[in-house]
Order: sequence, then structure tokens, then C-alpha cells
Amino acid sequence: MQFTINRNAFIKKLNDVSRAIAAKTTIPILSGLRMELTQAGLTLTGSNSDISIESFLSANDEKNALLVTEPGAIVVPAHIFSEITKRLPDETMTIQVNNETLLTTITSGQSEFNINGSDANTYPHLPDITAENQLTLNANVLKELISQVVIAVSNQETRPILTGVHFIINDGKLMAVATDSHRLAQRKLELGELPKDVEYDVVIPGKSLLELSRMLTDNMNDITMRISDKQVLFILGDTSFYSQLLPGKYPDTTRLIPTSANTTIEFEARTLLAAIERASLMSHAGHNNIVRLVLNPEQQSAVLSSNSPEIGKVEENLAFVSLEGASLDISFNPDYMKDALRSFGQSTITIGFTAALRPFTLEPSEDHEHFIQLITPVRTA
Amino acid sequence: MQFTINRNAFIKKLNDVSRAIAAKTTIPILSGLRMELTQAGLTLTGSNSDISIESFLSANDEKNALLVTEPGAIVVPAHIFSEITKRLPDETMTIQVNNETLLTTITSGQSEFNINGSDANTYPHLPDITAENQLTLNANVLKELISQVVIAVSNQETRPILTGVHFIINDGKLMAVATDSHRLAQRKLELGELPKDVEYDVVIPGKSLLELSRMLTDNMNDITMRISDKQVLFILGDTSFYSQLLPGKYPDTTRLIPTSANTTIEFEARTLLAAIERASLMSHAGHNNIVRLVLNPEQQSAVLSSNSPEIGKVEENLAFVSLEGASLDISFNPDYMKDALRSFGQSTITIGFTAALRPFTLEPSEDHEHFIQLITPVRTA
Repeated sequence: MQFTINRNAFIKKLNDVSRAIAAKTTIPILSGLRMELTQAGLTLTGSNSDISIESFLSANDEKNALLVTEPGAIVVPAHIFSEITKRLPDETMTIQVNNETLLTTITSGQSEFNINGSDANTYPHLPDITAENQLTLNANVLKELISQVVIAVSNQETRPILTGVHFIINDGKLMAVATDSHRLAQRKLELGELPKDVEYDVVIPGKSLLELSRMLTDNMNDITMRISDKQVLFILGDTSFYSQLLPGKYPDTTRLIPTSANTTIEFEARTLLAAIERASLMSHAGHNNIVRLVLNPEQQSAVLSSNSPEIGKVEENLAFVSLEGASLDISFNPDYMKDALRSFGQSTITIGFTAALRPFTLEPSEDHEHFIQLITPVRTA
Repeated sequence: MQFTINRNAFIKKLNDVSRAIAAKTTIPILSGLRMELTQAGLTLTGSNSDISIESFLSANDEKNALLVTEPGAIVVPAHIFSEITKRLPDETMTIQVNNETLLTTITSGQSEFNINGSDANTYPHLPDITAENQLTLNANVLKELISQVVIAVSNQETRPILTGVHFIINDGKLMAVATDSHRLAQRKLELGELPKDVEYDVVIPGKSLLELSRMLTDNMNDITMRISDKQVLFILGDTSFYSQLLPGKYPDTTRLIPTSANTTIEFEARTLLAAIERASLMSHAGHNNIVRLVLNPEQQSAVLSSNSPEIGKVEENLAFVSLEGASLDISFNPDYMKDALRSFGQSTITIGFTAALRPFTLEPSEDHEHFIQLITPVRTA
């Protein structure tokens, strides 16, 4: 195997693939980077037990300056190989593998590295996910959806299914839901072109979605999503992102969301976020991480407070857009509120309360259909 | 005590003073920020066992927008107080202390915090360092000097004196030296205005100098340096930086520096640094962190290599400016070389070797008088 390639073009794809390569792994071959060279181009593969990423450098793309001398395949230790390619002196580099010893020679300018490679045939095969029914998603919309729902994913392994996001596709629509049983986030999308009889019900690990979202950039074309029994595949141009699906049935979450409210208040999300951040300074200093919100629609007042006996206390009269319904005295974890508020960006939001001990909802004031956050309050005294 | 102040001006000085405040300390009062208010202005003080920083916000400086209502002094818990001031909603904030309970109220916009303060009289006094003989140093020159010598400071507490930098002032000159017994860095300065009979011989902790150098910025006026028996004081405009001196006598380092060389080679510091960084990828992967340099003046060749039996090897023909003297085969720790090379910036440097097992020197080719780095090689096989 031998090729010469533009170093920057190579490093860009290598960075993508490296996201799937764990520094520590119980399967030694997975600490490696797989390279497969054909006359058409070079394919890089990285994988861990949860996700796999494959990226292609075409011999036809001038930017790659890829010169294929001898096709072949090799696995090299990913970390040191990546460090080497980034520090080489020249614009291009040549990689040459001795097919018998698997010794891999990397040359660039006056610098020559020799590292020990491994047999590419010992590297696990990636699944073949056929394209019978594929979804097309806008990269920015997918990135937004992920950021809105992953905040509610559980990081406790006691109920593994809750570490994933529930994707339900039917009737030309996609619904994504996550809950850690203290809070819930739900986002809906219309899928224009999809036939109405296509139905999927899968749970994608939250960590996989977070890693995927880091690869989604503004200048990206639409993303293709393919689902099989055990895997989901996202295709981002020349790069394929595979994730395992979580086995098991996700709990029914539809009944958790209240359909009416006794007290509603509207805020600029950013204003409320700043106040919650201030109040949480005090709640974090104390033993229980709780802030208290007292709403008085008659007096049109909303007072946020927190109290840490050892350190001190904070109280703030909140600025709001509107306040209606019954008066209320409620306490909650400010960190859940911060995560939820950040997911709304600059918008005006409506918070709907049923009672002091019942979950409350946050929705964009402009759109009560597609996005909702739910937070369970904390019982005090 | 009560005052109102511009929040950004306050935060700027608070950030400086906070450098001296440790998150964890065995002396509880030192986890606090001391504030002392007079009609002239507000003084902030932070301290740990090694350094103390004091900064003044003048009532006469319009930018501070300081309104002194009632003079007084208080110590507040530094970390939470700092977080609070940074998150307040308004441009100004008012701080009011109940002189009996020491409860400290911070108000800004609609936000009100109450935190428990401590008696300012229980805070340790800073030393009084009189101005009989003070040195004036350019801020950029001092910053450069610190960056050049601290790299050779020892971080081993077995010989505490070597964790400091030796400052010798006499004959209108300043010499700063540090060594960890594997390498040495020495920088000399001419001190224009200082009377020739002023002599000092002190050891300043390397950590103090590093912290000081982080406060030295480009747009700063000259720094004043005052030395007493146990303390050194650097005055940076409105801010005073105090450091303990290390007790004991620094070893004589003048005889360690060779005065002649059998092999000399000139490099662009940046070019050699890049090659050393590449070679160290391999030396770091192996068990012993060594690179090998083979110089052959007859063939005008310089070859850098490193070898890690498990991972692989690297070899590079180095580009140099000139090479003279006897041929040489020498091995050294590439990390010492990297630190040393970075301290030369963009300049051309001359490396002088005596023999394979004797320390070698690095100096700017343009100036063999004021700055020298010394590295001890490693014995192999």
C-alpha cells in the first residue's frame, strides 16, 4: 500500500474519524485507525463499541492531491499517528506500508517516521444499512433538535434506556423525546417527503447524538438518516456516522405532559436565565440545590429567592412579560431550569404551572406545537 | 461601611487580587477578600501564604464611579462574592455592611444578595516595605526575563531553594538564574539609573514570578521593585504584588557554564523546535524520553532521531545555518530542549558542545552576553 496526499485535507477527515476512537479500549484493534486505499480514493475508519465513523478522500478531488501508488489496507495506532501527521514539516506526506512486516513509513520533507501497523483484516466490519426508506434532515435543524432534547437524557446507568433519545417516526412526522424522570424534553418535526406509512420507533444513545452534533456545521448539506434493527446511520457528505441503538422499549411519556395550566407566566428566556444563574450561586453554595419562585398574579409580582444558611441568601423581583391565574409558591432545581432555558435561545417562553408539586411546562410563546420542556418541582418542608 | 461602584471597574481589580486567593487554605480568613473603604477610595486585598496582592480603586477616577457613603472594612468569602459581582444585572452595584452583624448586602438592579462577612481586623497585615532603594523595570522586559528563567526552576520540594529564581543585583546590573540541576537558565539586565553601590542577593519563588508575569500586560508603565529581608514588592500602577523570599543560600552557578566549545551549530530556533517536537512524539511513546543528535561537520550533516521499540522510530536530516568543530553523538531529553528553544522566540541560536557527556549551551547568535540556557545530556548505554 502506498499513497501521497495533501496533509491538511487528510487531517480534516482524520479529525472527524478520530471522534469514534477511544484512547482506552478493551479491544486493542479499536485503538487503531483503519485506512483502505483503492484507485477511487482513501477510506478512513474509526470505531468504538457505540459509534463508528467512516470518511472518504476521493482521488478525483483536487484538494486532496491524492496519488494512489499501490492499493491496500492497514491499521495504525491512531493517537500517535494522528500526532505525527499534524506535526510533519511539508504540505504533503507519503505513506508506504511493507505488506509483509506491516511496518508503515510516513515521510514528509526531511522527516521519516516508521511505525508498526496491524493487519486490516482483523478490524471489525461496519454494518451494511440498506437504503429502503431513508429520511432527509436539514443539518441545522438536526443540530438544534439534538441540543434541545439531549439535556433531558439520563446519565445514570441504572435505567439504560433513559440514556437514549426516543425517536418516533410515523404519519410523516418525527418526534424526539428524552427524560431522566426529573425532567423531559420533546421536539417534533414535519418530514416533508417521507411516505406516510414509514414507521420507526428507536432509541438512539444520547452520547452518540452529542458526538454527531459536534460534526454538524453551518455549511453542511442535508443529512441522510437510515435506520436498521440495531443501528442508525447518518450520512454527512463524504462521512458516515454509525451508532448502535439501545435495546428495549422506551416508557410511554405522552401522559406525563399536562394539557392545562392554573398559572401561566411569560418571560424573555435570556432574562429569566440570568436571574436563575444568580440565584443558583446561592443554591449551589448550600446543601440542597433549590430555588424558590413565588408568583402573585393579583399584585403582578414574581419573586425568585434562594437561601444557604451558612453563606447567605438572594432575592430578586423578576421582570416578566405577563402573569395570569392562581398564585403559586414553588421550588425547583435551578440547574434543570438553566438547561431548559438555554435550549430556547432568544425567544419568549410561556411557563405553565398546575400546582406546587406537579411538573410544569416551558414552551416557546410563539409555538406551542413543536417543542416542550417539562420540569418536576422539589417538595420542601 | 457602604459604597456604590462601577461593576466592571471593580471586577477588573478583583480579578487581579483573586490571583492571590487560594480556593483551599488552612487559614480560613485567607479564603476571603478584604475590602477597606476610605474617602480616598477602596482597597482590595487577597493573600495566601506565599503572595499577597493589593489593588486600589480611587474615588477620584471617574471610571470607577465610586460613591463613598460610609468608610469601613470587611472580609467577604472571595469565591462566592466574586461569582455574585460578575453576574449582577446592573452597571453599578451597592455594597452595604451592617457593622454589628457583619451581614453584607449587595444590591444591583432588582437583585439583592446578603452574605455573611468576617471582621477585617482578623485579616493579617501586609508587610511594610520602605522605598530606600527601589529598582525600575520595564514591564515587557520583566515579563520576558521571567519567561526565560522560570523554565529551569525545580518543581521538586527536596531542595526548596531550587524552586526559586536567584536575583543578584550589583554594579548597576541584575542577573537572574534558575536551575533544577538538569538545566540552567541565566538572564542579565543593565539597570540604568540604579546607584552602583546598591547590592541585593535574593531568591524569589518561581511560582510567585509566574503569577506576577500573568499580571504584566503590554500597555503597562514601568514596574517598581522593592526588596526587604523576607519580602519583595512589585508595584504595578494601582496594584501591589508582594512575595515571600526563599530563605537560604542559592548554590554558586557561575562555574557550571562552560566558557569554550568543541562543536558549534547554528539553528533558526523555530525550525529546530518543530523537529524536536516531532522527534519527541516517538520518545514520549517509549520508556526513556531521549532523542539523539549526530553532528558531522565534515559532511555538514545533523541528524536527529528517536526510537521507541514498541511503537517505531523517527529520523530527520536537520536544516541548520552553520556547523563547525569536532563530530559529536549526543543524547538528551527533548522536553528540556523544547522549553529552552521556546524561550528564544524567533531568533537564530548558537548551540555549543564540549563533549557527549558535558552540559551544552544555547545562546542567541546575536547576543552572547545577556542570555544563556544550559542543558545536561543523558548518558546512553
